Order: sequence, then structure tokens, then C-alpha cells
Amino acid sequence: MSTEQWHSQRLIRVRELLGQQTAVHAMLLSDLNDIRWLSGFTGSSGWLLITATDMWLFTDGRYAEQAHAQINAVGVAAQVIECRTQQNVFEALAQRLSTCSHIWFQSAHLTFDVFQTLNNSVSANWVPAPALLRAIRRSKDAGEIALMGQACDIADRALAGVLPMLLSEPSERNVRDQLDYLMRQLGADGPSYDTIVATGPINAARPHHSPTDTRIEEGHTLIIDVGALVNGYHSDMTRSYVIGEMNGEQIHAYEAVREAQAAGVALARPGVATRDVDAMCRKVLHQAGLEEMFNHGTGHGVGLLIHEDPYLNSSSPAILQAGDVVTIEPGVYRRGFGGLRVEDLIVITEFSNRTLNTSPKEPSCQPSPLTT
Amino acid sequence: MSTEQWHSQRLIRVRELLGQQTAVHAMLLSDLNDIRWLSGFTGSSGWLLITATDMWLFTDGRYAEQAHAQINAVGVAAQVIECRTQQNVFEALAQRLSTCSHIWFQSAHLTFDVFQTLNNSVSANWVPAPALLRAIRRSKDAGEIALMGQACDIADRALAGVLPMLLSEPSERNVRDQLDYLMRQLGADGPSYDTIVATGPINAARPHHSPTDTRIEEGHTLIIDVGALVNGYHSDMTRSYVIGEMNGEQIHAYEAVREAQAAGVALARPGVATRDVDAMCRKVLHQAGLEEMFNHGTGHGVGLLIHEDPYLNSSSPAILQAGDVVTIEPGVYRRGFGGLRVEDLIVITEFSNRTLNTSPKEPSCQPSPLTT
Repeated sequence: MSTEQWHSQRLIRVRELLGQQTAVHAMLLSDLNDIRWLSGFTGSSGWLLITATDMWLFTDGRYAEQAHAQINAVGVAAQVIECRTQQNVFEALAQRLSTCSHIWFQSAHLTFDVFQTLNNSVSANWVPAPALLRAIRRSKDAGEIALMGQACDIADRALAGVLPMLLSEPSERNVRDQLDYLMRQLGADGPSYDTIVATGPINAARPHHSPTDTRIEEGHTLIIDVGALVNGYHSDMTRSYVIGEMNGEQIHAYEAVREAQAAGVALARPGVATRDVDAMCRKVLHQAGLEEMFNHGTGHGVGLLIHEDPYLNSSSPAILQAGDVVTIEPGVYRRGFGGLRVEDLIVITEFSNRTLNTSPKEPSCQPSPLTT
Repeated sequence: MSTEQWHSQRLIRVRELLGQQTAVHAMLLSDLNDIRWLSGFTGSSGWLLITATDMWLFTDGRYAEQAHAQINAVGVAAQVIECRTQQNVFEALAQRLSTCSHIWFQSAHLTFDVFQTLNNSVSANWVPAPALLRAIRRSKDAGEIALMGQACDIADRALAGVLPMLLSEPSERNVRDQLDYLMRQLGADGPSYDTIVATGPINAARPHHSPTDTRIEEGHTLIIDVGALVNGYHSDMTRSYVIGEMNGEQIHAYEAVREAQAAGVALARPGVATRDVDAMCRKVLHQAGLEEMFNHGTGHGVGLLIHEDPYLNSSSPAILQAGDVVTIEPGVYRRGFGGLRVEDLIVITEFSNRTLNTSPKEPSCQPSPLTT
């Protein structure tokens, strides 16, 4: 299918959602990711109003011309209305809502204040829709999976590109800068999130550490968490290393994390509760005596957001379904020890799953006999 | 003053704000920029509760250890409470609010849904505070201005570093990648926002264009809008160029934009309405017959956010005051012509202002006689 066909399918599904309602006549999208997903518009300011028959995109002067071009590129029939201020948007909205009395708004996105202003400015029955397009957007179409596959491939290649420099005692920032540069050279729009490079007994013990000038030393644990952004779609992957010989504790922990990750992936298929995948990872780490060191959830969905539905943790009610793209990323952390994490991005298929990234999982970075 | 002293001053100002209220007993911060500004904590998940005597930071397992370290580093006396879920945060909050009946919440930040959950979970009188710390954060202290000065210096040097490559027909993306790489090499944590490189009759006509593979050709307008991020603080600058000879229309437009920008800067000092600065820029462009081509506001405040108070546009009620750090950035755009914009970041001083960036404003990139 073409880009136009994907977008046309998306609009059909959104209008079906609206069509199932007798008491709601329109939806007002304020979440720019939803607006992008549906209309192709990527500006940083916009509102999208959708009825059974019409669609209007409200944006400001900076984006009006771009909005026309992007909407035409994906073949979506929406009118672009240029508005200078939020108040102008609400006035323009009011004009187009004469026949719509009940309207969904994105209550998980609009702030308390903006909703108050909307409610005071546009006379309608505003119906909170906490998760309006979440279920539709959760299931990725082949166009989206292809983009995330490209993003994974770029991150794989960038990671392979920095491995040689790890032996020359670079700083965390040096590695981060090189990864981000390589990803762009390889066609990414940028990193998918703030690239994590964390090494040593303190920094690597922080799952979401920001790179510093700390140097990567022999014998220390090293976590690299890196993804690429391609046309708005994210990838997400983590690999862990020790430069030189691993000690017994590191080998034990790495093998347990790798096994926990593999066991989580092996379980992931349609119909399985995400909390069971989380429990499986914890069980493997528990048997290795390391469960206490795993202090975050097992994974999350990825798409136009780096964190989205479904979440894989002990309190998530989600059941995996075909089209989910999720991370599986157990890790262990302790101040003094440092940390180790292994993470893949997988797509749930009809009967099992497929891993989108391909970076090897060998943790020990030894100086190559050819280069020393 | 030291980092600790800056943070201590900030907390004093926040507690003064609270002390002026008889009907409000605590404030709950959810905006991570406010939390960073006050406590030094940079994690992606956290809530900060402040009373006249106590302060608690609620965060999850990924950030608990980091939170301790960051709070200690700035000398803020806050207790860190580790909570796995938002519901756990609300339970932990409820325990600490027994003596506080009226509490400010950040109504411009909390979503409609999260507020509903908070309101249902924690029994208190929640008082909307749309702009709680905005006035305090708007006025930058010398520590903040120093960081933005560093960020400006990095962007200046990165821009100087890419100028030679403009003559070799690079793509917009090539230039963007090199700018972002250089800024990091020069010590930035990253770009301050998505770096804009826009050239040619179509792309440069979009004020917020995203870089593409379009090549920079002789005779076309080129806009480069670039800033660096240093310790959470942003810089913001735009320069415009034409490779080779400029034509008459380009010279006329560039001179008008440069004059409009200079006139805006010349007017900026404490007591002047930001809309008057905006009007001044428009007046200069009007006299040149180009006002219609200036389709966005004149500027905005910059700090921990790339866009924050005060805004400089025709509908802004803000009056400039010492400590404001704002952009002045008129531009002209038209499909077919392309675009030109000149932007500086200035700090409002006691009697006038000081420009934080120093990049030259020569628009014509000529092949150097030495290199050709």
C-alpha cells in the first residue's frame, strides 16, 4: 500500500469510531502526534476537527503553507484554517460546530486551563475522551513497521560504528556524540530520545543517566541505550558491555539479564498479558538472586512516541496483540556495581514476534588482536 | 554566588510567594522544568510538594538515586520518596497533606485527566495556579544568564564552523548535522531545539521548516536558526544568507529585516511594552513594503524552555523588565522568494539590553579569494 492508502485506512478507522457513537458528533484532536498520524501535518501548533464528513486543520501563519503541502502529500481531504492565536482557533471552531452538540476532546492531552478556556469559548457539550485514538494507533500498520525497521537498522549500524572507539577510553559524551552523528549520517532525523551512555559504578547504576565526561574504563560496566528517529517513528535498543575481562559478578549478572530478556521475548505473542512478560523477566532474575536490582518496568510500546501503549509491567492490564511494537528491556543496577541492561524492539506477529533490531549481544569488548 | 546560593535564593522567593497567601498552604509542582529550576532534579518523572517548612520529591525507581545526588548537589533540603506509579505518588501525597487543606496545582500543566485523578485520590481543596512560578522564573539570575551566554557562544562558534561548507552545495540536512555535531563537540548537551536549515524558494518560505535533502544553491535565500542547550538552558539565534551575488529584491528585503531587528533591539529596555517592540519591527518592514511577509511574532522569552514568558507580539500584555532574556527575530517569507530572518538573544539590563550572541550579520556568502 502507498502512504496515501495508509492514511486513507487510518481515517476510515477514525470515522468508524465516530460512527459507532450516536451521542458524539465530532472529535477535536489537540495531540500533535495524533494529528500527524492522521493528516501528515508535522507543525508544532495545530488542532484538527473531524466530523463524519469534514475535517479542518487549524494552525498559525508559520505552518499554513506547510500544512497544505503535507496534507496533500498524504491525500487527506482537510481544509486548512490559518489562526493567529488560540482564541482565534476557538472562534473558528465555534463557526464550524453549529450542527455538532456533543464533541470529544482529548482529556489526557488538554491541560486543565486550556480545557477551561475551550469550554468557556465554544458552546458545546465537551465529552472527555482520555484515550481517543490510542487503541487504533497502538496497532501499527506495515508502513509504520517499515519506518521503525529503518530506525532500528540505523541504530544498529551506528552502534556497530562506535564499538571500536570504546577501547580508547572515550567519555560517555564522546560516544553519545558519535552515535547521534552517525545516526544522522545514516539518514535518521535525529536520535529517538536522549541517547544514554552510562559507565562505571555510579553512572551505570542510574537506568536513565545523562552522558557526562566520565571515561569508559576497563573492567567497568557500560550501558548504551540508543534509537533513531525516522519520519516521526522511533526505535529503542540497549546493549551492555564490559571493556576487557568481565569479573564473576558481571558474568553472572549479564547472563541473568540476557536470559531474562530472551525469556520475555520468547513469551511475547498475541493473547499474552504484558504483566506475564514482566513476571517472566523478574522470575529469571529472581532465580539468579538479582530481582531486587531490577527497579523498572520490563518494556513499553513504541511508535510516534518513544513511550506509548502497551506498557509491560506488573500493574499493566494490557494483553499483547498483533501489530504491537514493544521493547523488552530488563536490567540490573546497584551503586558500586554499575548496571547492565539488554533491550530489543519487537513487533508482535500473528503467532509470535519478530525482533526489529539485530545488534549482537556480546558483552565483552576485547581489544582486537589485529589492532593491538 | 554559587549554585547552592542561587537555588537557596529561588526557594526563598517561592516560599515568599506561598507566605503571601493565607488561604493556600502548599504547592504541588508537576512541571518538570519548574522542578528542575527549584531542586536541580532532571529526571523525566517527578512531583514536588512544597510547604512553608518542608519539601518532598516523588519519583520512581529509575531516578531515586539520581534525585538524591542532584538535590544534594544544589543544597536543597528535600526528602526523596520513591513511588512506582502515579497512584503511589497520590497515596504518598495524601499522607503528607494532613495539615494542608488548600493546595495550588499547576493548572497550565496538569492534563484534564490527571487533575481528575488527583482530585479523586487526594482529598484537599485544589486551587488552580495557571502561572505559579512563571513570574519568578521569568527573571533570570546571573547563574542562568551565564549558562545562556555559554549556550550562545557555542552556537556562534558552531555557525562559524559551518560557513565554509555552505559554498560546496551541501544539503540542508548536511548543514544541520554538522551544526549539531559541532555544538556537542563544543560542550553543548545538544541542540536547543530542532535546528532549522531552510533554503530555496519553497523551504525558506516556511519559518519552521525541517531540514531536507534540498541542496543550497547559489542565488537562493538560506535561513539557519540554531541554538545550543547547556545544563537545561537554551540559546536561540538566526542568521540568513544568500550564496553568491544577492539580487535587488534580496538586498532590499535583507536590509529591511536587519533594520527591523536592530530597531526592535534598540527599543528593548525595562518598562517598554513587548507589543511596542513588535510594532517597531513591523513599522520598519511596513515602510519597506514588506509587512505582509512577516507572518509570526517578533520574539519570546528563553530559559529552561525555548519558548516562555514574556512573548513579544501584537497581543502580548507583557512589559519588559530587567532579567528578561528574549529573542528579537523579525523575518520575511514568500513562496517563490524564499525567506530571510535575523534573530538575536538579548538580556534586558537595568537601562537597556545586552546581546548574548555575537555572530556577524553579513548575508552574502562569497567564495573566498583565498580558497578559490
